[in-house]
Amino acid sequence: MNTIGTQDVGNGVNVQALLDARQALTAAPEAARFQWRAQCQWVNGTHSRTTVHGFAGLGEEHTHRAPFVFDGDHPEVFASQDNGATPVEILLVALAGCLTAGVATVAARRGVRLHSVKASVSGDMDLQGILGIDADVRNGFTGIHVAYEIDADAPPSDIEAIVAQSQKRSAVFDIVTNPTAVTVEVA
Amino acid sequence: MNTIGTQDVGNGVNVQALLDARQALTAAPEAARFQWRAQCQWVNGTHSRTTVHGFAGLGEEHTHRAPFVFDGDHPEVFASQDNGATPVEILLVALAGCLTAGVATVAARRGVRLHSVKASVSGDMDLQGILGIDADVRNGFTGIHVAYEIDADAPPSDIEAIVAQSQKRSAVFDIVTNPTAVTVEVA
Repeated sequence: MNTIGTQDVGNGVNVQALLDARQALTAAPEAARFQWRAQCQWVNGTHSRTTVHGFAGLGEEHTHRAPFVFDGDHPEVFASQDNGATPVEILLVALAGCLTAGVATVAARRGVRLHSVKASVSGDMDLQGILGIDADVRNGFTGIHVAYEIDADAPPSDIEAIVAQSQKRSAVFDIVTNPTAVTVEVA
Repeated sequence: MNTIGTQDVGNGVNVQALLDARQALTAAPEAARFQWRAQCQWVNGTHSRTTVHGFAGLGEEHTHRAPFVFDGDHPEVFASQDNGATPVEILLVALAGCLTAGVATVAARRGVRLHSVKASVSGDMDLQGILGIDADVRNGFTGIHVAYEIDADAPPSDIEAIVAQSQKRSAVFDIVTNPTAVTVEVA
């Protein structure tokens, strides 16, 4: 995994492998079709446990090194037991992780060494939507704000450009900011 | 926390508390404004660690019973180290958890006892988007599919209606299926 990109700036991102992947997938676009999965099991009340393990891509099945398990619940102020983060918070986790992986990747690609990257993410929500009090209030966030603090060997304008490019290439940013079709069926 | 709703069907959802909350927030809508938060720290490569602890609502600050910590990373097929679920998988976890909490809550409200609830969630993605191979391919999921298997004391049509109502009231379902504004700034 030591590549030119990795050695150049030391962010731990394998830039050469990503460039190779782009070349390979340009030649074989059907290999670019991935399917990501999660298996959720209700525990009790609003508490559920969701496992991420297998996924498909590059024309075959894969598994992560280990299953990743997530507890979701509602907090005590909603008369729940707070056995895990609230699902809307888990969505903020997904957004933060995707944008931050992007910052590291774009920085490596541009030869910018990162010393530290922190993101504070917040999502505002009016519960009048979800509780059915006001039909004009949406269930989800009225808006999400992400604030980065980045220490890197680059001037502020370059750092801002890296963060902007990360948004442009982020899957979760796209899913959240644009409509994504969800079909739900009962077996 | 023993209420009529909980005792009636035993799903562990405090229905009376939710009805009381709706009444209280109808009278004091400013208390319905919540802010959910996550703090993300880049670790190395595409690996980041995000913590969920504090949130605001009901006019004050709250903390969860404990900080909830999430590792996000990319898998080894992307030349990463697979130290955590991929952020798009974490988004599927959020969706599954939100819809499933809703199923339990709506079922309790309707007096339907649940024995088991499982959801298999999958999201299809064409990597030609995120890798910048084809500008016409989006970065995010082309679509998400959720398949529920529910064992409950109710006929299939009632179970389907519960799942449908859960979608109607789900914050994460709304955020994913509709556009949500995200602002990103660098401090």
